[in-house]
Amino acid sequence: MSKIIDLNSDIGESFGAYKIGLDKEVLKYVSSANIACGWHAGDPMVMRDTVRSAYNSNVGIGAHPGFLDVMGFGRRNMTVSPDEMKQYTIYQLGALYGFVKAAGAQMQHVKPHGAMYNMAAKDSKLAQAIIEGIWEVDSSLIVLGSCGSELVRAAKEKGLKAANEVFADRAYNVDGTLVSRSLPGAMILDTNIAISRVIRMVNEGKVTAINGEDINIKVDSICVHGDNPEAVDFVRLIKEELSRAKVEIKPLSKFIK
Amino acid sequence: MSKIIDLNSDIGESFGAYKIGLDKEVLKYVSSANIACGWHAGDPMVMRDTVRSAYNSNVGIGAHPGFLDVMGFGRRNMTVSPDEMKQYTIYQLGALYGFVKAAGAQMQHVKPHGAMYNMAAKDSKLAQAIIEGIWEVDSSLIVLGSCGSELVRAAKEKGLKAANEVFADRAYNVDGTLVSRSLPGAMILDTNIAISRVIRMVNEGKVTAINGEDINIKVDSICVHGDNPEAVDFVRLIKEELSRAKVEIKPLSKFIK
Amino acid sequence: MSKIIDLNSDIGESFGAYKIGLDKEVLKYVSSANIACGWHAGDPMVMRDTVRSAYNSNVGIGAHPGFLDVMGFGRRNMTVSPDEMKQYTIYQLGALYGFVKAAGAQMQHVKPHGAMYNMAAKDSKLAQAIIEGIWEVDSSLIVLGSCGSELVRAAKEKGLKAANEVFADRAYNVDGTLVSRSLPGAMILDTNIAISRVIRMVNEGKVTAINGEDINIKVDSICVHGDNPEAVDFVRLIKEELSRAKVEIKPLSKFIK
Amino acid sequence: MSKIIDLNSDIGESFGAYKIGLDKEVLKYVSSANIACGWHAGDPMVMRDTVRSAYNSNVGIGAHPGFLDVMGFGRRNMTVSPDEMKQYTIYQLGALYGFVKAAGAQMQHVKPHGAMYNMAAKDSKLAQAIIEGIWEVDSSLIVLGSCGSELVRAAKEKGLKAANEVFADRAYNVDGTLVSRSLPGAMILDTNIAISRVIRMVNEGKVTAINGEDINIKVDSICVHGDNPEAVDFVRLIKEELSRAKVEIKPLSKFIK
Repeated sequence: MSKIIDLNSDIGESFGAYKIGLDKEVLKYVSSANIACGWHAGDPMVMRDTVRSAYNSNVGIGAHPGFLDVMGFGRRNMTVSPDEMKQYTIYQLGALYGFVKAAGAQMQHVKPHGAMYNMAAKDSKLAQAIIEGIWEVDSSLIVLGSCGSELVRAAKEKGLKAANEVFADRAYNVDGTLVSRSLPGAMILDTNIAISRVIRMVNEGKVTAINGEDINIKVDSICVHGDNPEAVDFVRLIKEELSRAKVEIKPLSKFIK
Repeated sequence: MSKIIDLNSDIGESFGAYKIGLDKEVLKYVSSANIACGWHAGDPMVMRDTVRSAYNSNVGIGAHPGFLDVMGFGRRNMTVSPDEMKQYTIYQLGALYGFVKAAGAQMQHVKPHGAMYNMAAKDSKLAQAIIEGIWEVDSSLIVLGSCGSELVRAAKEKGLKAANEVFADRAYNVDGTLVSRSLPGAMILDTNIAISRVIRMVNEGKVTAINGEDINIKVDSICVHGDNPEAVDFVRLIKEELSRAKVEIKPLSKFIK
Repeated sequence: MSKIIDLNSDIGESFGAYKIGLDKEVLKYVSSANIACGWHAGDPMVMRDTVRSAYNSNVGIGAHPGFLDVMGFGRRNMTVSPDEMKQYTIYQLGALYGFVKAAGAQMQHVKPHGAMYNMAAKDSKLAQAIIEGIWEVDSSLIVLGSCGSELVRAAKEKGLKAANEVFADRAYNVDGTLVSRSLPGAMILDTNIAISRVIRMVNEGKVTAINGEDINIKVDSICVHGDNPEAVDFVRLIKEELSRAKVEIKPLSKFIK
Repeated sequence: MSKIIDLNSDIGESFGAYKIGLDKEVLKYVSSANIACGWHAGDPMVMRDTVRSAYNSNVGIGAHPGFLDVMGFGRRNMTVSPDEMKQYTIYQLGALYGFVKAAGAQMQHVKPHGAMYNMAAKDSKLAQAIIEGIWEVDSSLIVLGSCGSELVRAAKEKGLKAANEVFADRAYNVDGTLVSRSLPGAMILDTNIAISRVIRMVNEGKVTAINGEDINIKVDSICVHGDNPEAVDFVRLIKEELSRAKVEIKPLSKFIK
């Protein structure tokens, strides 16, 4: 029987006169999209367009809430309380829901952005706060978080569906966490190696950690990027190679229970 | 048979460390609340608290979207396109919906704030744009606009329920529009006069315009304020006098069809 | 004796993760730069870099204040009071001064951006307000405004040095104002025509208005753009043609008294 | 010979429609004012008014830069780089300079606000970054920081004048740092005790730490608050008691070398 995997990408990150991301290109290949909700990127016009494009491409629509920090693109940690984290999640989920309803579409999942994602991966209280926010808005949503994160743990504890994502271009520590970008070897630069690692993660549930040891890894979705033509080429390639390896690519909602 | 009227007030306009409005006091008297959605006022913590307070007070919950201009409190006209106006409405309605769902409450109505309200009162294209935004998010919402405004007209044309509001403390022109605040006599400063005008508007559907002529006026809701203790006293008083005049005060959802 | 002209361009309009404008390219050709001050575009890192680049390129440094509206890129009119306009000017001039001082450079001029520019071109009170703001911060600054604008008039009245700019790619009405972009013929699309018009404006002080009549026009600076490679090519070309026509290109400070 | 001390307070923290702080009252008693620069609080109208009021009250004018976080009032740590910290300082110093120049006044000092203050107290790289920013804008400014902080250390190292502030209402650890607000005994609630502690700090250079031990403390300025009438009463009282104890109150510029 064939394996199933989701490909996800952050899109809808343009803002006013500022355009970034090859959203239309990347939507041809991914099965789920994380759509910025106006706080770190994405204005209402962009959100409307992006929700529509994802819907028309049969791509699963996800909210991608971040910190209110356009200048820092939501990538800077901020010392917020769990209650703030929860309400910021609710606000942004709701805002994206407006466009999802206007498009006659469905929201599939939530994946926090940048610093919110990183903080919620490690801090159980912040993770729980985000999960409570999602739960109170729509308990049928799928939470997309990094494999082994506090966010995924908190989602399951609460009874929300959760999906584990991996990064094709990142090295892993032996405990399953990502090797910090500041360390040598953190990025997998060779496309072929990246792809074969991903296929092994999908098919065998294993990856070689940075110390050379094989570790178990659970993968439901692969995070890819659409920042530039090379990134989009990589997405196309990974999709082709997955197909060749008899791995089906489907939105999270089709296989996460 | 007794008349029915709604009393509405803008609340939830605090922001971070900045507190304004005697929301708890005013919620004792009004039947509908227009809750700021984070763009001109109201942060997510404030929105959560305000939705809860209104819900616990059995006050009808309304979205109060405004321009993204905290510095100007959403009171400054901005030359936005109809499409921008529509998407800004959808974003803010959605955001408030998040908190309404989290509270297990219902959204009753929408009333644009400040410059958005004023522009939509006169400009039919902007009015239609707001109405389309509301329609696409939830076609069961009631639109609260000034009596005779393009917004109310557009709501009815689209098939949305609409309610006409009047201002107890403002003079009217003979065409039913408000006398500009910059003109003498624009404000009704005498509380007793203001109250007897309101009661006559409710009971007879008439008000004396600034030129002394009686005009017809349709009133479903009276807009009151909670900015300071005197304003709240006036709300209490107007409620008492309406009761004495056998006018029932109910949220819009109870009587607007 | 040869004529002298300034070439000016808006630069420093990137913001956080968002990059726009071929600033380094355009700095090779222009003699004055209008640098965004953080309100409509340009964050502090961008401002630092841009001031330095302009300084190192011997390009005259100008403040380019706009409305606090990153989402609208400062292009949307806002109904601000003259006093607000004045203080917004002072704030942004001051902010840019910080970077000018840090770079050991000098500020040469001020040119309002977008909606602020357009509003100040027509509204004498807003124009005077901006001029007062500039005057109070540094009365030696040159004001760069559109030829025949209220801004230039107000600058002269106050005693500030003023420079008139023209647009190479825009048609003029017979009264010297720009033909609205919404009208046919507003844009001069043929590069050769644009350049010969500019050279005639510089050499003869005349331009053919849209109705075919020749009008007098006073030009101290030509506004050019660096948004894309074609725009930069045009800047290079106009510079070459001006040189060929024995027109010297110098920063405003070298010839505006 | 009499001792000299400065009394400083944060003012100018209103924003648009939001008014906070009894600035006019507190300006009667303090000798130096830390004026918000628009990022965490204070809009250009407020900055103009506040600079003028301080100037007219012969109170030393200081810049009070903070993080771009009105919603969090600049109180939330953000993971910014030293270079960002430096440029954010330059931007805000410059902006306040605009109003200082417009008022014909002088800037006396800089005191970072909230999270920026706390982070720069402990992190030497961020402290150095702020100091470089100040140095590049105006090397004659006095840096006001907490006694024993990295900020004060970095200022001295760079050659900037520095002043040590203490808090009348806070307990100290034996190493001279403030007892965290989350611990019991962190706040000195008894006004008389607070005042006698301050007078001893000024006169003897000593304070009793929370463990009962006497420690040396260097004090140039006492930080006081004007948030509410009780706070202002305390400022008035501390000023009276200092006078009675023959301590002179003067702006930093009069005695910091």
